[in-house]
Amino acid sequence: MNAMPRIDRTTLNQLEQTLHHEIPLSRAMGIQVVRLDAQGLALSAPLAANINHKHTAFGGSLATLATLAGWGLLHLLLHGHPPATIVIQDSHARYRRPVTDDFTAICALPESEALTTFLQTLIRRGMARIDLTASIPVGGRPAVEFAGRFVAFDSTRAPAIGPA
Amino acid sequence: MNAMPRIDRTTLNQLEQTLHHEIPLSRAMGIQVVRLDAQGLALSAPLAANINHKHTAFGGSLATLATLAGWGLLHLLLHGHPPATIVIQDSHARYRRPVTDDFTAICALPESEALTTFLQTLIRRGMARIDLTASIPVGGRPAVEFAGRFVAFDSTRAPAIGPA
Repeated sequence: MNAMPRIDRTTLNQLEQTLHHEIPLSRAMGIQVVRLDAQGLALSAPLAANINHKHTAFGGSLATLATLAGWGLLHLLLHGHPPATIVIQDSHARYRRPVTDDFTAICALPESEALTTFLQTLIRRGMARIDLTASIPVGGRPAVEFAGRFVAFDSTRAPAIGPA
Repeated sequence: MNAMPRIDRTTLNQLEQTLHHEIPLSRAMGIQVVRLDAQGLALSAPLAANINHKHTAFGGSLATLATLAGWGLLHLLLHGHPPATIVIQDSHARYRRPVTDDFTAICALPESEALTTFLQTLIRRGMARIDLTASIPVGGRPAVEFAGRFVAFDSTRAPAIGPA
């Protein structure tokens, strides 16, 4: 069973503003927060701002959108309880086929058990890790498969280390 | 032994223009082509355009710079013989410590033998794969370690597939 938080559109808009404000590259990429549902958190980006020499989506943009879908999902799941800094520790991206249009990365909700362990560890130790997966589908099949390990630090307790 | 091509500054400037022209995100990131030497190809980016919520370099930017260092190195090594389209197939990034200033990704030259096999395969089969590694050092130690598998397609023979 997956954890399905209740998040309204205002909160999704706030996440989009947070991304654009704190990570200017997300604005340059034209990233939008689309929805959070049982499939996970969906972020989109237009092809035009993220195009490459083959007139398809640039690999760096694809991996970045997936990274931010993971970061955004944790941001929403934590929702400031405790106030946490979230960083990425490790990521793997597999590019399976070209993305020829505007694209959407969907980061899947973690299993309830994994999320509970993550939250309990964060509260108890001030730091916790969680593995998330995201994909960028094209025509119903994954064009990009992404796996990321994220770390959250309770920002009332410890200085954060690491990127992103 | 590593393959060390003879590349002048004009060619490096052309690579920078190619990146900025064909991948607009590289311009938004402020990417510059710094040098090609025995260490490999070095690309730099300013912190300001690539900052995150912790005022360090955003993970997406770090992985993207490393990806482009790999792409750029292959672009220089092939140098149009044969005319090839280069894409990334798989990438792994490990974020070890924060990057708190302007940063440089260095993609190492492949071993001569691996490069020879890659070029021979590309000429013979019209397509070849090669694994490259890049790092983003901070204070002499790698802050980011990156490994990417790239594929080149002889563009006179086959349509290219895959991102980046």
